[in-house]
Amino acid sequence: VFQLLLMDGARPRPNICVTAVSDSSGGISVSATCTCTSGLPLSKILSWKQAGNRLSDFVNQDSDSEIIHHVDTMQMVKAVAKPSDIVLDATPVNLTDGGVGLACCRWAAQQGVHLVLANKAPLVLGYRELLHSSQQFPVSRLEFSGTVCGGLPVVNVGKRDLASTSRLDSVQGIFNSTSNYILSRMANGEDPADALAHARTVGIAEADASLDLQGYDTANKLVIICNAVLDIPAKLCDVDREGMTHLTLSDVKEAAKSGQVYRLVATAERIENEIEICDNDVDTEEEKRMRICSRFKLSVRPTLVPSDSFFGQCVDTDMSVVFISDEFETISMKTNEKGVFPTAAAMLRDCCSILKV
Amino acid sequence: VFQLLLMDGARPRPNICVTAVSDSSGGISVSATCTCTSGLPLSKILSWKQAGNRLSDFVNQDSDSEIIHHVDTMQMVKAVAKPSDIVLDATPVNLTDGGVGLACCRWAAQQGVHLVLANKAPLVLGYRELLHSSQQFPVSRLEFSGTVCGGLPVVNVGKRDLASTSRLDSVQGIFNSTSNYILSRMANGEDPADALAHARTVGIAEADASLDLQGYDTANKLVIICNAVLDIPAKLCDVDREGMTHLTLSDVKEAAKSGQVYRLVATAERIENEIEICDNDVDTEEEKRMRICSRFKLSVRPTLVPSDSFFGQCVDTDMSVVFISDEFETISMKTNEKGVFPTAAAMLRDCCSILKV
Repeated sequence: VFQLLLMDGARPRPNICVTAVSDSSGGISVSATCTCTSGLPLSKILSWKQAGNRLSDFVNQDSDSEIIHHVDTMQMVKAVAKPSDIVLDATPVNLTDGGVGLACCRWAAQQGVHLVLANKAPLVLGYRELLHSSQQFPVSRLEFSGTVCGGLPVVNVGKRDLASTSRLDSVQGIFNSTSNYILSRMANGEDPADALAHARTVGIAEADASLDLQGYDTANKLVIICNAVLDIPAKLCDVDREGMTHLTLSDVKEAAKSGQVYRLVATAERIENEIEICDNDVDTEEEKRMRICSRFKLSVRPTLVPSDSFFGQCVDTDMSVVFISDEFETISMKTNEKGVFPTAAAMLRDCCSILKV
Repeated sequence: VFQLLLMDGARPRPNICVTAVSDSSGGISVSATCTCTSGLPLSKILSWKQAGNRLSDFVNQDSDSEIIHHVDTMQMVKAVAKPSDIVLDATPVNLTDGGVGLACCRWAAQQGVHLVLANKAPLVLGYRELLHSSQQFPVSRLEFSGTVCGGLPVVNVGKRDLASTSRLDSVQGIFNSTSNYILSRMANGEDPADALAHARTVGIAEADASLDLQGYDTANKLVIICNAVLDIPAKLCDVDREGMTHLTLSDVKEAAKSGQVYRLVATAERIENEIEICDNDVDTEEEKRMRICSRFKLSVRPTLVPSDSFFGQCVDTDMSVVFISDEFETISMKTNEKGVFPTAAAMLRDCCSILKV
């Protein structure tokens, strides 16, 4: 999708030359001697993928540029990416060990290669490490504006526009569109299983939607906000998480009697916590980390909200966030997006920001 | 208020040294030989102003730093501001000739001095000129994130997060809190005159609220969005403007019957306009300008919206914006702010951005 955006001739695009791409089968890159005015033949690659083929089998029939095949994405990134290049990670979330995404990001950050992520796992598992590596290079950038709520610039607004100047007291949000879609259809009387089937039909739910419905995806996004916006080194285990799969139609009907609806709400709320934070030698690193995180109460859970409230009015595929701070008071944002373009566009936005377009 | 924020010891602040301030009576600055570690004695100046005094009469009783008085703000800025300094303009809106605000901004931009504006007039009257001057200096910045909807980062999100990557097809918003407050109280049956009196009591309406109620303030903000976000050289005269002063309680009651409320909505909507834009010698500059602007329909007018819609739910002192673009679909933002701190905090945010804090 990112490649489709790049090729959109209808408007000016930054002069980005794609030198390597990969899928689960491996990767292809232009030869090192390529002068790189055009990079890979994107339209041919897209047609190849759209026909259901694997990249490892890609053959450049016109052979107007030399293509190198790589069995291993990590090895390809190491062979191709140089400082001032950008590595874009849109691999699937792997929370076990971060997978090839974290491995590539870690290497790239250590080399001063810019990073643009749509994949949440490297940030959830290694934000501090990636940021630290990236900061060793004065111009190196770590951008991930599409990881929370797709195209809605939640991270950018939180980090750049609010946290730089004010004390954020609360960040709450509806960060997962599949669960919101189902809750919103249940409020209209639809059975949860039928609503999930519908969500699959319109293309927003994965075959395995359990990570969405059990609140893991929402918790991932909350952890990213904690680290990048609230500046606390939270991990997934710090989030008090409850999914929405136990909610029944009769729970939802009961709520409706008092004008309320359920939403799967993520919350980071500052709490009065006067525990002195001192660099006591007795403390382990983990104890210090937990003490810093204890300034905020972190949760993901089905929450009753008035149906005419801001969250109540977030229906179907809407996602949203509410920032409460001392100086900016209450700032709310929401997006209605159905496709995969907004996240891809967010990756392009990050590239434009890095390239100062 | 900006000075109050700077002096807030409760959190880390950027190391900003205030070397000069002015009010309508004139200005004061530190002497040119000042080593500038602390700048002006801000807390004393604030107490002086809070006691109702004029800056021109300010006496630094402890005389721990030498204060220079200036009769003319423009002359003071010329004497004090150097490249890499920041000039902050929060003077009252003057749409006749831009007043001292535009004069100072124009000079500062020409010298490569950074500009942070809360005053809309220099942007409404001279955005292109200021931007052009500022762009002659590679590091010089022109920031004004507090000019549209106070602390809500409408300009920043529009410019940085959306317009860099997508084609904006529509920007709509409720940009003036005084008129929204009155419309929202009228919906509850309150007489417009009483509602205005209330708005004055809570401190959101000026003694002369006519610029708010007749839609001029909203139109100013729309012109800023046109220039800075949509990249069209619109002027106030391009906005089809209608105020809300003719609306009566019975109009509002009539609307309520069909579940609707009035909101003073600003709209910039892209229209299909196939007029070829060519650099025809026959065209005057003004004709070229109008042709570019004709890509958008610009209006400010009382608009009926469903009371449970996003705009309908913007009540009291809320302000809001809705961006519709091809790639990010629909992104909505709103703020609820009552005081003057959010706009001052937005100026501080702009300073932090310039100083890369």
